Amino acid sequence: MIELADRRAGAAKNTPAAAAAAARVAVPPRAGTSGAQAAAPVVDVAALGELLLGKWADTRRTARALAGRPELHKLEGLTHTEHRRRAFGQLKILVENGAVHRAFPASVGGADEHGGNVAGFQELVIADPSLQIKAGVQWGLFGSAVNHLGTAEHHRKWLPGIMNLDIPGCFAMTETGHGSDVASIATTATYDPATEEFVVHTPFRAAWKDYIGNAAVDGVAAVVFAQLVTRGVNHGVHAFYMDLRNPDTKEFLPGIGGEDDGVKGGLNGIDNGRLHFTHVRVPRTNLLNRYGTVDADGGYSSPIASPGRRFFTMLGTLVQGRVSLDGSAVTASKLALKTAIQYATERRQFNASSQTDEEVLLDYQRHQRRLFTRLARTYAAGFASEQLLQKFDDVFSGRADTDEDRQDLETLAAALKPLSTWHALDTLQECREACGGAGFLIENRFASLRADLDVYATFEGDNTVLLQLVAKRLLADYAKEFRHVNFGVLARYVAGQATGAAIHRTGLRGVAQFMADTGSVQRAAIAIKDEASQRALLTDRVQTMVAEVGSALRGANRLPQQQGAALFNSHQNELIEAAQAHAELLQWEAFTEALGQVSDPDTRKVLTWLRDLFGLSLIEENLSWYLMNGRLSMQRARTVGDYINRLLVKVRPHALDLVDAFGFGPEHLRAEIATGAEKVRQDEARGHFRAQRASGDAPVDEKILLARQAHGTRAHGA
Amino acid sequence: MIELADRRAGAAKNTPAAAAAAARVAVPPRAGTSGAQAAAPVVDVAALGELLLGKWADTRRTARALAGRPELHKLEGLTHTEHRRRAFGQLKILVENGAVHRAFPASVGGADEHGGNVAGFQELVIADPSLQIKAGVQWGLFGSAVNHLGTAEHHRKWLPGIMNLDIPGCFAMTETGHGSDVASIATTATYDPATEEFVVHTPFRAAWKDYIGNAAVDGVAAVVFAQLVTRGVNHGVHAFYMDLRNPDTKEFLPGIGGEDDGVKGGLNGIDNGRLHFTHVRVPRTNLLNRYGTVDADGGYSSPIASPGRRFFTMLGTLVQGRVSLDGSAVTASKLALKTAIQYATERRQFNASSQTDEEVLLDYQRHQRRLFTRLARTYAAGFASEQLLQKFDDVFSGRADTDEDRQDLETLAAALKPLSTWHALDTLQECREACGGAGFLIENRFASLRADLDVYATFEGDNTVLLQLVAKRLLADYAKEFRHVNFGVLARYVAGQATGAAIHRTGLRGVAQFMADTGSVQRAAIAIKDEASQRALLTDRVQTMVAEVGSALRGANRLPQQQGAALFNSHQNELIEAAQAHAELLQWEAFTEALGQVSDPDTRKVLTWLRDLFGLSLIEENLSWYLMNGRLSMQRARTVGDYINRLLVKVRPHALDLVDAFGFGPEHLRAEIATGAEKVRQDEARGHFRAQRASGDAPVDEKILLARQAHGTRAHGA
Repeated sequence: MIELADRRAGAAKNTPAAAAAAARVAVPPRAGTSGAQAAAPVVDVAALGELLLGKWADTRRTARALAGRPELHKLEGLTHTEHRRRAFGQLKILVENGAVHRAFPASVGGADEHGGNVAGFQELVIADPSLQIKAGVQWGLFGSAVNHLGTAEHHRKWLPGIMNLDIPGCFAMTETGHGSDVASIATTATYDPATEEFVVHTPFRAAWKDYIGNAAVDGVAAVVFAQLVTRGVNHGVHAFYMDLRNPDTKEFLPGIGGEDDGVKGGLNGIDNGRLHFTHVRVPRTNLLNRYGTVDADGGYSSPIASPGRRFFTMLGTLVQGRVSLDGSAVTASKLALKTAIQYATERRQFNASSQTDEEVLLDYQRHQRRLFTRLARTYAAGFASEQLLQKFDDVFSGRADTDEDRQDLETLAAALKPLSTWHALDTLQECREACGGAGFLIENRFASLRADLDVYATFEGDNTVLLQLVAKRLLADYAKEFRHVNFGVLARYVAGQATGAAIHRTGLRGVAQFMADTGSVQRAAIAIKDEASQRALLTDRVQTMVAEVGSALRGANRLPQQQGAALFNSHQNELIEAAQAHAELLQWEAFTEALGQVSDPDTRKVLTWLRDLFGLSLIEENLSWYLMNGRLSMQRARTVGDYINRLLVKVRPHALDLVDAFGFGPEHLRAEIATGAEKVRQDEARGHFRAQRASGDAPVDEKILLARQAHGTRAHGA
Repeated sequence: MIELADRRAGAAKNTPAAAAAAARVAVPPRAGTSGAQAAAPVVDVAALGELLLGKWADTRRTARALAGRPELHKLEGLTHTEHRRRAFGQLKILVENGAVHRAFPASVGGADEHGGNVAGFQELVIADPSLQIKAGVQWGLFGSAVNHLGTAEHHRKWLPGIMNLDIPGCFAMTETGHGSDVASIATTATYDPATEEFVVHTPFRAAWKDYIGNAAVDGVAAVVFAQLVTRGVNHGVHAFYMDLRNPDTKEFLPGIGGEDDGVKGGLNGIDNGRLHFTHVRVPRTNLLNRYGTVDADGGYSSPIASPGRRFFTMLGTLVQGRVSLDGSAVTASKLALKTAIQYATERRQFNASSQTDEEVLLDYQRHQRRLFTRLARTYAAGFASEQLLQKFDDVFSGRADTDEDRQDLETLAAALKPLSTWHALDTLQECREACGGAGFLIENRFASLRADLDVYATFEGDNTVLLQLVAKRLLADYAKEFRHVNFGVLARYVAGQATGAAIHRTGLRGVAQFMADTGSVQRAAIAIKDEASQRALLTDRVQTMVAEVGSALRGANRLPQQQGAALFNSHQNELIEAAQAHAELLQWEAFTEALGQVSDPDTRKVLTWLRDLFGLSLIEENLSWYLMNGRLSMQRARTVGDYINRLLVKVRPHALDLVDAFGFGPEHLRAEIATGAEKVRQDEARGHFRAQRASGDAPVDEKILLARQAHGTRAHGA
């Protein structure tokens, strides 16, 4: 054990994870640990913590230190007015700490650092999701639009004020009538060559900008998205910089009006609101004209000829929001799991297996299932999130910025963001319930985080719509490239698409073996728990689902529009399921790749159990598909649940290590039940009863008295 | 159509459902309705609405009228202090309206009416869940404990003040250390014959009463649960009436202390808190002694000799809370579905099937799947809830009050409350997401209701613990009665248990046919959609799961305690799944029985589709089980999804009727997007573009221009 203690203490000693690990080495076995033996593997918590911090570990550490400061924390129980005021003040603290300028051009004092910027942003969710999203509105959306859609003059003119918060602003894209279908927004910007101005106008109520952060109170400027019309031609959606309010009086400028969206289900530190424009004139040069410009006479020109491609290129800069939310959702899941698992190792209820001691919650099978399956998915989502962030950085840094790279990035973000945000909501809720009434107290944060993260499933792209985008991409590629090719080629295609890494050429052979297999239960279990088999099963499902829908939809484009749409719609559910299967495969691949980066064999062993738990959970969730499609025999399918149960038992002794590796300190967790207070209470209670039993003063239980009397009667009678 | 209009107008004209139906007859087909034809069935909304109101329809109507009054509505955005004050004030309005006294004895001005009392209570969730639960604490728990555990003298002394709110009180059972395991609470009440008093004492921190409603601010008295100790014997948990605070100063009486639980994830109109007692003396006569009493000398006596049975009898009165929450959760699901489905018939996004008109959301297959499967389950849960309430009334009125009746009632409540409360959370969330950003605004109520109902999954019995209670009951009965009997007898047993109605004797034969069947896809589909086949499949699953776990656990009681507990624990997950399957079967049976009460053939037809959608959804969710256990062939299993998709299309034209039948007026819905405002906005937008197209002033889309130019170039070149 000394060697282990040394190894642990040696690595990154100043992290909370390392401190927790070091503190723990002295007192094995942990209270409530079951099945731990001398030969059991030991997780190198500090090294695992480093791995989880990823490529931008230092940036994350800096951001976490900031997020741990009390003045940035969410105060519960504020009115939305108070919370808004607090969040705005917190933005200034971020500015003072240089926490939000990494992505801006060096020319205006930024660092042109895209991946690191998002990594730092993702950690802000720990302090207060409202603060995070308010910062996201100001710098990730409003500032980012000026940065990516504007040109040098725009940068020089507005970015300094945006960066230092002199210009709090809005990203005014969504309208009451159009959220997901941005191309159909109805606000117009019509060029008037007489004055060299655009006239921005809201034609009807549904075209009001809506749900716009900073719009209700703080925004003095906005990037407004509108249909650009010049010389009678609508060139599609473009972005315009516009002053909204008098910076001193905060009153709307002439022609501009709005409403407060009021209280929301969460994120009440952000002042979302509505905006409308009545023939508001903005200078021609306020068009953010990187991808399309209008000359003084009203002539339109663009470096991108196709209006469709131009639109998607402009919107492509939005991918940053999806990447940001993906990792933030994973961080929230980690917070919840650390608290719930910590509590579950201390909390006791019911004494099934002893006359005196109650069971620790985490020793209950169902409790393990509830928490460990989600822990496994959180690890998978975290590794996938890191891959997405690196891909994002490659593209935005220009290192790998082809059209295909951008499309891959967008598909990856559209696949991962829905899964991680839904997973965060699911995990926060399950952890809330797993902690019972204590989970519902705001002091333990589950309910607060869940309320705030709810809308992460909707903004920056509705999850269901995003998954359709993924499905359509899978399908379009399938129809274009693979209409007449055999299944094997498609297999390679999807595997390549899925991992962005080496193609798993043997996948289909593995599947064929499965299908032929009718062997013993034991052999079946070995096959399922094998990494190659998990990969084959998960990959095959994506391939087959895409191919089946693709084949069912073949020729849809040649039908009259209405019939084609109806045919497509009749397969919408399958399409979304295929996209989800694709995204889950990506997560599984990311987890599996990460195993290769773990050098400590013990740690790799435990993480492999966790990866298997994730893989087997995915297979169990879709077991009917594997059975219906002849991929698993009845006998083999019946082993999945048992094998999952065995994995739960294996993971149990390492559960605390696996959540300690997330590296949160008490200043990040801020949950009463994650402080060890429950253990103190339980120890006090057990001490009381132990002392009472020893003293002989304990009242006799009526049940025991009756049993004694019955025994006495029988003995007497005998 | 005239006959239909007459029929509709004839029935219960003054309900909102009837008014909505009458208003609608004039304007078929409804906007966005797809697939409606002249011969399509028409739902009799008014008659269906009456059926849904159930046995206590008049009481529900009265309670809804009250719940529609603005002074009882939740105000959003209040601090928890303000909300608490408002909720307390609202309780007085309930008193003034005689809304909460139905269950109390006639001797003190009540009506001895148990079912009606709960029916009325369930409707209060419409006004504000905080108000509902605060009323539940005062009259359903505190008052009910005095009523059911106390005797005539207690009733005379305290019930009038409890009923009129002169004595706001607490139900102090749960402790920080023990929630689910009430038998292990650690507060003691030790009898002192010298003064004829009980000494109530909190021995350690974990024994503080916690999460107690009314404890932080309002409660001046409490029913405190404690281990009754007299003459050195602990007779188990008993209830004691205790004064808590000086009614004038609201200060704690000597020896009593407490804490505020603070802000919670929801229900912030209730002042939950903690209480502790330091040798607090209460008169001997304050023991609520219906089931156990102590004479002046300290002699204990009870009409129930077995301490175990005595404990469960006392706790049995708690079943009222579970019954109450079950129906309340269904009501909340109905509110959400009415709003989301109404909005989905008006909201448009993307124009896949037309150049000019966007699709109505409810015509998207995925949207139908998200909302209609939950609508079907809500109907099932509602009919099951009504059966539970009637059973509750039978028992508590004394009409059918044997031990077996009580056990059946408790098992039924423990089975249904988890499913309906989880379903409400799932439905509120899905509806929230299905309405996008609008769903997140508090003005549309999803997020508010969801936050408040969150803890319905925990209090009055944690859902997971309740399902284990059900499983243990199923298993205990199985082990006791059917250890050596054949499968057929077990089949009848479970079917009888499930429905409380006629035994489905042909069930197993039907299942055998399924297992033998390898027929065509068409035959398979017919078999699955058949009522008897659904029943056979669902029943068979419960039977088999219980039998399998029962057989695996055989002999567990003869093992040493620790090994027995470990064996039990290794099947905990299966046990809970078996209990859930049982509860779902109960819901399906209740829905099926309700179909027999629908006289209008059209309505019955549509409701049968909805019941089939529920049944098939259950089978789809557990499809892997049916496949692994040879109950469905691969071919047949593959038809389930398709058949569900076809049912969605059939239900689509009736979706609005099915939610209008819930009978909510705008004063109950109180959601901006349920007002028809979206339709007004959509009509205005479409009118704008129609006029623009007609005028010839519309700007030309660049895409169309490019297409024209390309065409012109080609024409020129030819």
